[in-house]
Amino acid sequence: MAKGAGMIHPQLATMLAVVTTDYPLEAGEPIAFLRPAVDTSFNRISVDGECSTNDAVVLLANGASGVERTAERDAELASALAQVCGALAREIVADGEGTTVLLEIAVTGAVSDDEAAAVARRIATSPLVKTAAFGHDPNWGRVLAAAGSAPWNGGFAHVDPDRMTVCFDGTEVFVRGEPTGATPDLGGTAVAIDLDLGLGSGSAAYLASDLSYDYVRLNAEYTT
Amino acid sequence: MAKGAGMIHPQLATMLAVVTTDYPLEAGEPIAFLRPAVDTSFNRISVDGECSTNDAVVLLANGASGVERTAERDAELASALAQVCGALAREIVADGEGTTVLLEIAVTGAVSDDEAAAVARRIATSPLVKTAAFGHDPNWGRVLAAAGSAPWNGGFAHVDPDRMTVCFDGTEVFVRGEPTGATPDLGGTAVAIDLDLGLGSGSAAYLASDLSYDYVRLNAEYTT
Repeated sequence: MAKGAGMIHPQLATMLAVVTTDYPLEAGEPIAFLRPAVDTSFNRISVDGECSTNDAVVLLANGASGVERTAERDAELASALAQVCGALAREIVADGEGTTVLLEIAVTGAVSDDEAAAVARRIATSPLVKTAAFGHDPNWGRVLAAAGSAPWNGGFAHVDPDRMTVCFDGTEVFVRGEPTGATPDLGGTAVAIDLDLGLGSGSAAYLASDLSYDYVRLNAEYTT
Repeated sequence: MAKGAGMIHPQLATMLAVVTTDYPLEAGEPIAFLRPAVDTSFNRISVDGECSTNDAVVLLANGASGVERTAERDAELASALAQVCGALAREIVADGEGTTVLLEIAVTGAVSDDEAAAVARRIATSPLVKTAAFGHDPNWGRVLAAAGSAPWNGGFAHVDPDRMTVCFDGTEVFVRGEPTGATPDLGGTAVAIDLDLGLGSGSAAYLASDLSYDYVRLNAEYTT
């Protein structure tokens, strides 16, 4: 169970999620199972780049299944948690304030996983990438520009345009420094943006919403 | 002379500005006069938080005035440059893509000037602050939330809600932890947001645009 809408860019703080299991866990144990699942799900989504003050993910385990714990079953729980958290996180973005298009951003070929995450996060929060998505425009230039301005270690992430390749919905639009001229039709409610930096083996994924008239309307008309 | 529109969040890289003077400067000298003026003008504006690839500010000096240089006249040039750059930077934001309201953000009482700038920058780029401005809403909560999530030194800027005071157009709406209940009418084309952090003597100013339907339209319809 999860709710979200706006102020979604969790670093865990208005997102609420509760996962329940009848698997037997001791008090204090759930966090060790939950944290890795949260790191690649709820902590990798962005609606508007705004952090909330009270995001929370809770795992409740009552042991009612009565199953015997084994290392293998613990691993199955961890895997199931990652799936459930991933599915809930995706629904939060799809249901975000003003969302019309879900962006599935995957960055590969980074120097490290952390640097890939920084690049993916910058693309996920770029107003120009998000308005292009609202306009169904496979605008690789905005993806490259966002990647090149990703904050990293007090400076910027490592990028080299001549090594970068960008695909929209699986179609290559920019390959190692050169546009291919392809203009894939982005008519769906989800768009996959794959960026290969061509530098190393670091990778990260991020889910984001587009930036639409309705996001502006909801947040300009609403007052507290 | 200056042009801008979108992709305005200069760290000096589509903003172009040229300042001319007939004051006598030697080759290589203009940068020393220009840099301090740029730091507090062109580098303190944001339309959409997007950096461009080719912002440039140029100072051309031909010495045609034939005046004798003195330390006092050099200081006058520096002061005039700061004024001219400040006025041009303000025009760029007012003329930004979709701008309907100019936000004049002033942060005082920070631990340091640099930390004040980080807080001001976060407020200037917050979608929630910018949509509230489009809705003419004196939403102090969004200002506080933005300040509290300002990235600083790998963590977040120092803030304490009980020491923070927020004014919209000079009216106190939140004083040291408590809302005043005042709801100033923000009907104009400019809004002053003053945030006193109450922690130290650091200060910084920033100019920003609101986030409007037209910003979304311009950047969703435009394709490259």
